[in-house]
Order: sequence, then structure tokens, then C-alpha cells
Amino acid sequence: MAVQTVASSSDSTIDLGPAAALSCRECGHRVPLGPVFACEECFGPLEIAYDFSGHDTEELRRRIEAGPANIWRYAPLLPVPADVADKPNLNPGWTKLVQADHLARELGVTGGLFVKDDSGNPTHSFKDRVVAQALEAARAFGFTTLSCSSTGNLAGAVGAAAARAGLRSCVFIPHDLEQGKVVMAAVYGGELVGIEGNYDDVNRFCSELIGDPAGEGWGFVNVNLRPYYAEGSKTLAYEICEQLGWRLPDQIVIPIASGSQLTKIDKGLKELIELGLVEDKPYKIFGAQAEGCSPVSTAFKGGHDVVRPQKPNTIAKSLAIGNPADGPYVLDIARRTGGAVEDVTDEEIVDAIKLLARTEGIFAETAGGVTVGVTRKLIKNGLLDPTKTTVVLNTGDGLKTLDAVAGTGLSATIRPTLDSFREAGLA
Amino acid sequence: MAVQTVASSSDSTIDLGPAAALSCRECGHRVPLGPVFACEECFGPLEIAYDFSGHDTEELRRRIEAGPANIWRYAPLLPVPADVADKPNLNPGWTKLVQADHLARELGVTGGLFVKDDSGNPTHSFKDRVVAQALEAARAFGFTTLSCSSTGNLAGAVGAAAARAGLRSCVFIPHDLEQGKVVMAAVYGGELVGIEGNYDDVNRFCSELIGDPAGEGWGFVNVNLRPYYAEGSKTLAYEICEQLGWRLPDQIVIPIASGSQLTKIDKGLKELIELGLVEDKPYKIFGAQAEGCSPVSTAFKGGHDVVRPQKPNTIAKSLAIGNPADGPYVLDIARRTGGAVEDVTDEEIVDAIKLLARTEGIFAETAGGVTVGVTRKLIKNGLLDPTKTTVVLNTGDGLKTLDAVAGTGLSATIRPTLDSFREAGLA
Repeated sequence: MAVQTVASSSDSTIDLGPAAALSCRECGHRVPLGPVFACEECFGPLEIAYDFSGHDTEELRRRIEAGPANIWRYAPLLPVPADVADKPNLNPGWTKLVQADHLARELGVTGGLFVKDDSGNPTHSFKDRVVAQALEAARAFGFTTLSCSSTGNLAGAVGAAAARAGLRSCVFIPHDLEQGKVVMAAVYGGELVGIEGNYDDVNRFCSELIGDPAGEGWGFVNVNLRPYYAEGSKTLAYEICEQLGWRLPDQIVIPIASGSQLTKIDKGLKELIELGLVEDKPYKIFGAQAEGCSPVSTAFKGGHDVVRPQKPNTIAKSLAIGNPADGPYVLDIARRTGGAVEDVTDEEIVDAIKLLARTEGIFAETAGGVTVGVTRKLIKNGLLDPTKTTVVLNTGDGLKTLDAVAGTGLSATIRPTLDSFREAGLA
Repeated sequence: MAVQTVASSSDSTIDLGPAAALSCRECGHRVPLGPVFACEECFGPLEIAYDFSGHDTEELRRRIEAGPANIWRYAPLLPVPADVADKPNLNPGWTKLVQADHLARELGVTGGLFVKDDSGNPTHSFKDRVVAQALEAARAFGFTTLSCSSTGNLAGAVGAAAARAGLRSCVFIPHDLEQGKVVMAAVYGGELVGIEGNYDDVNRFCSELIGDPAGEGWGFVNVNLRPYYAEGSKTLAYEICEQLGWRLPDQIVIPIASGSQLTKIDKGLKELIELGLVEDKPYKIFGAQAEGCSPVSTAFKGGHDVVRPQKPNTIAKSLAIGNPADGPYVLDIARRTGGAVEDVTDEEIVDAIKLLARTEGIFAETAGGVTVGVTRKLIKNGLLDPTKTTVVLNTGDGLKTLDAVAGTGLSATIRPTLDSFREAGLA
């Protein structure tokens, strides 16, 4: 990871609510809030350190419950100013936690099975949660262009968020991306730049741009704003617990791309315990990967602490990160909580997408097929306890990955007559 | 319209909340609640007659505000049992009312412009609202199969709703529908039957099936359950007013397909006035069509009471009903409220989709391009007052009609170097 070379613009006028500083996850070194992402001492990743002191638990709970039906109900726990809800933004979150009784029956779960369905976000993936945090950081640091490197969901989320906020956007993608994905990102009218090269080339270019005068005033949501951006995933933990009646689930199944989402959900659960908003009890966190990109799952099963990079080859494109930055942290959390990391084949992913659609009427992106498929596999393996309350994440919408189920079609073709209808055996 | 030949199954055990009877919109003839849709006296359309007596206004308002973040907060005003929220269903509604300040600036609206964004529904169109009502009627009448004729959004909404509810579904579509639309409907695992013929043939076949023993136990959401189904659109009126702070907007722009949605929104607004939930004041209702299917707009501009059928030819497929059943009622409402009906070309529809995406980060279906485009045209015409509070409906998601903006693409392609970036003039 390249060290951020631009000087921190943080000073005493930066108001990001309870965010007090940036702190290195490796060595604990603290620096003021600013558009930096790597520790100057050890190159470790920086994350937000909060000051949550002075909260009365029941007052905080009442304040959250009286808040808006989006992530800003949790503004007191996020790196955003207190008036965040008054500024134009996409207001993501507070998506449905679906009690999935039919799916539970199919999978043999008796302890309660829930799907946290993040396809209900404004651009239909969980990325709206993280981009919304990055947007507030961009505003705080005076950035006028919102940017990112992306191969799909993130491009649309950044384009839409910038449009709503009235900022310029400039998104970098590999030049040979599928036309459908290009359209989904380009429609918001920002700059959409194709880079001649693969996703690694795009990322390398973005890091160069941040260090160059040409990139001045640019907030890259997943690079120099990453510490803020990543915190958005905590809201998934908050919502799940509040929607369960301020209760921790026993088990959560989370997809792994970079691994950031899983680590931040764990962070969010721990915060709720520390704040007294939920009763402390053990919970298990499970990670889900596609077999075609399973570096963390492979390390978990092999008992390794180090994650060996892989070259992705799976239909679950939104999870296809072969060298996941937070892989080691994911291994640690899965092992510490008594969870596991598992993977499924592309065929199992498609089967699981259809299973979820057929049983619950939820059409998931391939990433949702991964979590549902892995849940089924973990139950068969005996690693996930079907008598416990289990939450499975669906992080995106099936309309974004229609190709995965392109084989699905008509059950019959008939003439418009009752005789033809009867012959087809449909009555 | 064919008369329903199956005897009404309504009796004193049917509990659909405040729904008291069916009543003919033409002659006022009343019949008990049942799966019928046409008056036995005059063949006019039947609609729900309610008993709203006994409501204390402020108690009702408190009850609604304390209700769930979906359409069931309005259960006391809908043809559903009081415990509707406890049964598995998609829980649609309570979608965002977006304060569209950037769009307002582009259009010159100074009185407040809002987009009611129904792409946030579970299957990403307003159809989830209407299907949810039909589902409750189907349960009340003991139907075990949920069915419909469809060319798009409705097929997915019925498939998903039936899956969640644990009912069988059987959806009829023209056999030559685009593959993408087939996939979106087929993924929910119900029967999806292609009919050799056009949409009219599909409809005719469904009417035949209802009268045949083979169709026994089948609830066709948009045929024999239509009176219940149609009421779902009232919830758009309820939500808009509550989200404006229990206030009527001055002007609403609504797309016209069959015209049912527009007439039911008007019905919903009148109910809120009668119940004392909003202050009575004049409001204007505007209808929006595509030029390539503009029978109501043509009649409105020509000063006619009769709507002459047209052969649709427009990219706004979800509005392409050439012979809209509720056309005359729409004309009446537009004229009575001082509104208007207008249409826009396919080119203007695409422009309006891009305008809405660029200014507000909302990616609308072609139907949303129709309402935004018509709003712009009505302001230019002087028919819509830009100094008044205006609400524009977006009834579906752009991901469903990607082809409409397929021309949208990269702003530049560059090599992954800063020099190439500068040469492209992006800095």
C-alpha cells in the first residue's frame, strides 16, 4: 500500500462528529483527522478513533429510534457532523431485515433465519452506505471532486452520490468493462474514464494521481478517504441489532471482497456492546467467498495466518479481489468468534440465487448467492448451528448481474387457448 | 370488458378491514366483497367502498406515524385485515420523497420540487404496492395461485410476492418478450408461461381462464382481483402528504398507463381531506404520457370526453397501453382540478432520464423520464406553476430499461499515466 504523501489538511475546524483522530490498526499511532489512509510510522492502515464518552445509553437509544429511516439515525456513532441529515445526500440504509421462514425450512434452520437485504439501497448495493460517509469527509476536507477506481457497483454509487450532493465526479474503470456496467455508471453524468489496462492498473494510476497536483481537491472514496468510507459498513451491524429488537444475532454470514465490510461489522457489534445498547453475549462471524476467488477461505481452512493472493475467476465479480487487504483481520475475527470462512462454486452461487428468489422473493446479486450458498454449506458441514439466530447478508441486487441467471426462462409456451393450457399440464 | 361469471365467494367471514363492499363507479350498484370486477347491472368497473366511520383524526394520525416504514402504516385505510403486517409479504412502500433542489434549479421551479421515487420498492417499481393489496384479497378469498398477464414490471412483482407469501404463481406473457424481462420474472421460480400472440391475446386468454374450471382457485391480480389491486396506488397519495408534513402538494405529475394510478391517487387525496388528516385546499393533477402512446393526452388537448385507442410505439413500454380503461376518468380529474395531460417524445424521455440522474442521482425507468419530461414541458407551456409545491412521480427503476440510455458511455479513454490524463483535459 502506498503511503499518502499529501499533507493532512486536518485542523481544529474539521467537524466529523464523534471522530476524534485516525489511529493505526497495527501500531496504534494517532494522527489528526485528514485525507490520509496509511500510518506514517509503520505503513499500517489508519482507522477512525472515536470519542463516545458522555452518552447516556437509554437517551442514545431513544435518539436513534426517533431518527430518520436511514443510516443517519446512527449519526452520533459515525464520522459525520451532527447536521448530516440536512445536507443533500442519498440517505441510504435502514434496509429490510427479512424474516426468511421459507428459506429457513429449506435449509433446516430452526433458530430464526434473517436476510439483511441491502439491494434496497438507492443504487441497489451496500456501497451507498460507505460512499455516504466518504462524501461527508470530502465535504469536511473541502474536496470538490468525488472519485474512485471501480469495476461496477462503486462507480454507480459514487456517480449518484456526487450528483445528489452537487459535487463533480470522476470515476476510473478498466476501458473494456461490460457495456451494461458502463451505462449504469455513466448515466449520472459525471466523468467516466476508461483506463487502458486492468483493475490493478486503474488502482495504481489513482494512487499516482493523489500524489500529483492534478489530483488536488479530489477525494478518492476508496483511497485517500478510505478510513471514513470503510466505517459505513458499521451501520449494517447497528441496523441488524436494532431490527432484531436491540439484540445481537448468534451468527452472521458476510461476503468477503477486501474483507473490510466484515471487520467493520465486527467493530460495530463491539461498539453496541460497549455502549450498552445490546446485551453482551458471544456471536460468531462467518465469511463467504466464491471458490474462484477464495484466498481467505483457503487460508482459513489451511490454518494459515497469511493470505496468499489468487487470480480471480468467478461470476461473483463484486467479490473478485484476489489480494484482500483485510484478509488477515478477517481470519482473526472468524477464529476469535468461533466462526469460519467457506467458499462455494459458481454453480452453487447460481443455485443459491434461485433458492433465495424462489423461497423469499429476493433477487440477489451474485454476492448474495455466495452468502446463501455458503450458509447452506456451513450447515451441512456442521460449522453453523441451525438452532441459533442467523443473519445472512445480501449486499446487492440481481438486476446488476442478470447474466448469472440468464439460463432462467419460460416454463412453457402455449397457444392462447384453454386446450393448449390443459395440454401443458398447468391446470 | 367481460363480465365476471364466477359467483362471488364473499360472505360475512371475509375480513378486509375497512372495505365494506364493492360499488360500481358508473351506477353505484353495490355488491358484497368478492373476486369480481365488473358491475352486473351496467358492466361498469367495481371499486372498493369503505367504512371509515369512528376514526378520531388525531388518534388515526398517531397510529399511522407509529406504524411500520411501509404501506401497512395505512392499513386502517386499505382493503386488508388489521393483522396484515404479521403475514409474510414484501412490505413495499414508504419510499423516499426526494427534495430535488438541483432539478428545481434546472427547471426554474421555486416553490419546492419533490420526486416520489418508487424505484425503492422491493422489485423496484410501484407494482409492489398494488400486488400487495391483491395478495391480501387472494388470501381472503382462499386463492392458492397468484396470476397476471404482464409485459414486464408486474410479472416480477407477482412472482416475488407469491414466493414471499408461499403461494403458487403463474404469470402469462407474450412468448417473444425480451430475454432480460423473462429472466427478471422467471427467477422467482413460479410458472412463467409464454403465449403465442401479442399482449391482447394474453389478456383475452386470462379472461377465458377465469371463467373456466381450470382457473378455479386462481387470483389474477389485474383481472378478478383488480378492485383490490388498484387501491394500492392510494398509498402513494398518503405517503406524499405525510412526507410533506401532512400537507397536500399544489401540483402532482403522474404517468398514465391504464390511468388507474392517477385516479386512485386522486381518491387517496380526497380521503385524507375527508378524514381531516390534511387541510382542504385546491390541488392540480397532471397526467404524463409518451407521444408514441398518447390517447389521453390527445383527447385532453382536443377537448374530447372520449379516448380514441392508439397503437403504441414508444420506448416507455410500461406506459404503452393504447386503450386505457380509466382514460375518461383521468380526463375528468385533470379538468376538474385545473391540471392537464401532456406527452413527450422518446428523445425527450431519454433527455429527462439523464437530467434526473445528473441532477439528483436518481436513475429512473422510462416512465420516470416521461413524468420529468412532461413537467419540463408543462412549465414551458405555462400550464404548471413553478412557484407552487410540485411532486413528480418516478414509478420504476432505470436498471429495468437500460436500453433506453444504451448510448451513454465513457467520457474518455486514457493510458494509465498522468500525461495521458492531462492530455485528455480532465485535470
